[in-house]
Amino acid sequence: MRLSRYFLPVLKENPSEAQIVSHRLMLRAGMIKQSSAGIYSWLPLGFKVLKKIESIVHDEQIRAGHIPMLMATMQPADLWRESGRYDDYGQEMLRIKDRHDRDMLFGPTNEEMITDIFRAHVSSYKDLPLTMYQVQWKFRDEIRPRFGVMRGREFYMKDGYNFDLSKEDALHAYNRHLVSYLRTYERMGLQAIPMRADGGPIGGDYTHEFLVLAETGESEVFYDSAVTDLTFGDRDIDYDSVEQCQAVLEEFTSRYARTDETHDEVVFQEQVPEERRRFARGIEVGQIFYFGTKYSESMGATVQGPDGKPVPVHMGSHGIGVSRLLGAIIEASHDDKGIIWPEGVTPFHCGIVNLKQGDDEADAACNQLYAALSAAGLDPLYDDRNERAGGKFATMDLIGLPWRITVGPRGLKNGVVELTSRRTGESEELSPEEAVKKVVAIYEKHRTGRGF
Amino acid sequence: MRLSRYFLPVLKENPSEAQIVSHRLMLRAGMIKQSSAGIYSWLPLGFKVLKKIESIVHDEQIRAGHIPMLMATMQPADLWRESGRYDDYGQEMLRIKDRHDRDMLFGPTNEEMITDIFRAHVSSYKDLPLTMYQVQWKFRDEIRPRFGVMRGREFYMKDGYNFDLSKEDALHAYNRHLVSYLRTYERMGLQAIPMRADGGPIGGDYTHEFLVLAETGESEVFYDSAVTDLTFGDRDIDYDSVEQCQAVLEEFTSRYARTDETHDEVVFQEQVPEERRRFARGIEVGQIFYFGTKYSESMGATVQGPDGKPVPVHMGSHGIGVSRLLGAIIEASHDDKGIIWPEGVTPFHCGIVNLKQGDDEADAACNQLYAALSAAGLDPLYDDRNERAGGKFATMDLIGLPWRITVGPRGLKNGVVELTSRRTGESEELSPEEAVKKVVAIYEKHRTGRGF
Repeated sequence: MRLSRYFLPVLKENPSEAQIVSHRLMLRAGMIKQSSAGIYSWLPLGFKVLKKIESIVHDEQIRAGHIPMLMATMQPADLWRESGRYDDYGQEMLRIKDRHDRDMLFGPTNEEMITDIFRAHVSSYKDLPLTMYQVQWKFRDEIRPRFGVMRGREFYMKDGYNFDLSKEDALHAYNRHLVSYLRTYERMGLQAIPMRADGGPIGGDYTHEFLVLAETGESEVFYDSAVTDLTFGDRDIDYDSVEQCQAVLEEFTSRYARTDETHDEVVFQEQVPEERRRFARGIEVGQIFYFGTKYSESMGATVQGPDGKPVPVHMGSHGIGVSRLLGAIIEASHDDKGIIWPEGVTPFHCGIVNLKQGDDEADAACNQLYAALSAAGLDPLYDDRNERAGGKFATMDLIGLPWRITVGPRGLKNGVVELTSRRTGESEELSPEEAVKKVVAIYEKHRTGRGF
Repeated sequence: MRLSRYFLPVLKENPSEAQIVSHRLMLRAGMIKQSSAGIYSWLPLGFKVLKKIESIVHDEQIRAGHIPMLMATMQPADLWRESGRYDDYGQEMLRIKDRHDRDMLFGPTNEEMITDIFRAHVSSYKDLPLTMYQVQWKFRDEIRPRFGVMRGREFYMKDGYNFDLSKEDALHAYNRHLVSYLRTYERMGLQAIPMRADGGPIGGDYTHEFLVLAETGESEVFYDSAVTDLTFGDRDIDYDSVEQCQAVLEEFTSRYARTDETHDEVVFQEQVPEERRRFARGIEVGQIFYFGTKYSESMGATVQGPDGKPVPVHMGSHGIGVSRLLGAIIEASHDDKGIIWPEGVTPFHCGIVNLKQGDDEADAACNQLYAALSAAGLDPLYDDRNERAGGKFATMDLIGLPWRITVGPRGLKNGVVELTSRRTGESEELSPEEAVKKVVAIYEKHRTGRGF
């Protein structure tokens, strides 16, 4: 993209309404615009990152064998009356009457809806196991929305649901989700630690939250520092293997790591040597649940078992906060100049800054770099505006592209351009061909499908 | 995908609630499930096609230089009061009160919202031209939703908005949209004819609807049969060229083609020789508008012109009915056995039918075909269930994959499998390698990014 043809309304001033750094930087970088309290438009740069994150989520869900589908945002209240949650849910549920005066709601989650689909179409244990998921807009009418997309009212979320014949099978689905979530967050450049959590209104004895450590996190967390040494890495996991998934669960959850809701100071002190005890804050970016037959029994979702008798299915649900993740990534990765995107989710792969727009040689060199990066399947952002170099650098730093190539007449006389890492600030002089080659090599392992 | 691991709840019986063939076939093929009147869940097969269509729309919008972004579904009523449309819109607007008793609505379209974004961020003519678009869920509370996704209440739509300094520039944007829409529909295997239309509640003197001819269409259309001979084909259009876009507009709209709203029998008879006069029905799958300064004036969206004086921008809006297109494509492409997907939007590229599941040789051949097609970047559906051949063929015909490879012990003895075209029903015997090669070649020009 050439910046002169893009819509990137960066702000020079810090917006007063933003209390935390991710909210401030998303507004300043022209990623979002509030349309009403807790509701945002995703401007082009924000939309690109949202789609990158969604794309990684889909990739990893499909890799785990989960089947994508999509449910409507508007749900009939009657379904929620069946499960008993219509009255329980309280004021966070946005309730609506349509023109025929029927009670509807903007779905905050989809256990009832997916159970209804299941019971309508599945009748035999032979069709199990089954896990379906969606990435869809949801609404929770927070009394005090704040922190930008971190605690918005309309938010984008992946929610998945497993249906299994037995508790044992459902716990394999639970473990499979844990593994896929670890992979998902790591591809986004995040460390998200699974912590023992509380079931809340969804219910369930087995549940883990995934938390990203950040000073601005809303949750207090207590953990053994050894958990932060764990990485999933490039392991090749067979998602059908009960043993392999169980082993990952044990590796990542056997050490103490809990939110304040489940924290037990006695157990903490017993299990964790003093020098490894940590207290910090964290941002919740996902949660997995096994809740057994809670919905299948109340809504009559049974299958015929191998012995011909009806069995209520064992279920779980599993969520990733897709829009919230933009905030979490920025909280975990920024400096005083702006955002620092991890390569896996960056809106553009590489910035190109022309120090002397209008200079024939500099323009030609930038055009060649742009063409070469594009031809290699990358998505560069070329700042081709007639602006001073300082302003161009400030914009690139603010929007946080991990790599920048700077082109000027002086360097070109020596046959070089400058390749700069946003994270370290380090630069090296390279021929344009070498610079392209290096950027292409960096992104070899971060291909995530189409760009927007 | 192996069918034994997928969720494809096909129905044997014709559902009684469906009045038209596309609705019937989408229900029977397990693509959608109604959750309340005019609101549908997109089951996995339906979701795949929806995403294929969306992907083509994005591709062609980006090719035309339009910038993707995303606006929330929930809009504040106050914006619509500014334009005067809050009271005008009537009962099709779904009106909502949030917990603080503020008036909200589920957006049926986004002229107000995008104009608000524009006026907040753009102040100079130097930032024009600008066209942004989104693909987002919308809601129109139809009094009698019917025909499945063709006239649903919650629907998926691409809506784009151009901002230009002058009427002349805005008409170029209009023409550019017309060109991009022609390309878009052709990639989906559809002929959609631009017809002179009526502005309706959006307003505007310049407007064309795109209609797909189909017996079940809701619109009556009158046209010169010569318009159906036009195809866009592989032309390489420079979207920045006023002349090239104008020429396409003239080629495709100079002959008589109107809906009943703008039909003029006298002009029809004058302009069109009797043997070329056609009366038919059509499905509207898109519409483009130029409406000048209607919203920019009422909402104060002005830029500083070259002479320093404020100028209200010239705007247009442009829509493609993404979810509706599934219905339109099926109405235009089916037979009494089921759907016939055009290659550009098919949910899976090729079916594989194993005539003798459990036979070592047949299983191995199917696995090899599956692996070879997948390795070539295609997305096959392998019916690996223990079902009779007749049932497998019926399912493949119903769900409409354009190509099917049939594998059985008898053919394998002679080293061949059978490749069948869904459209013509013709089969040929080929070695498995040749069959793969042929299918891969067919899809060379239909690559549309990631599958789901």
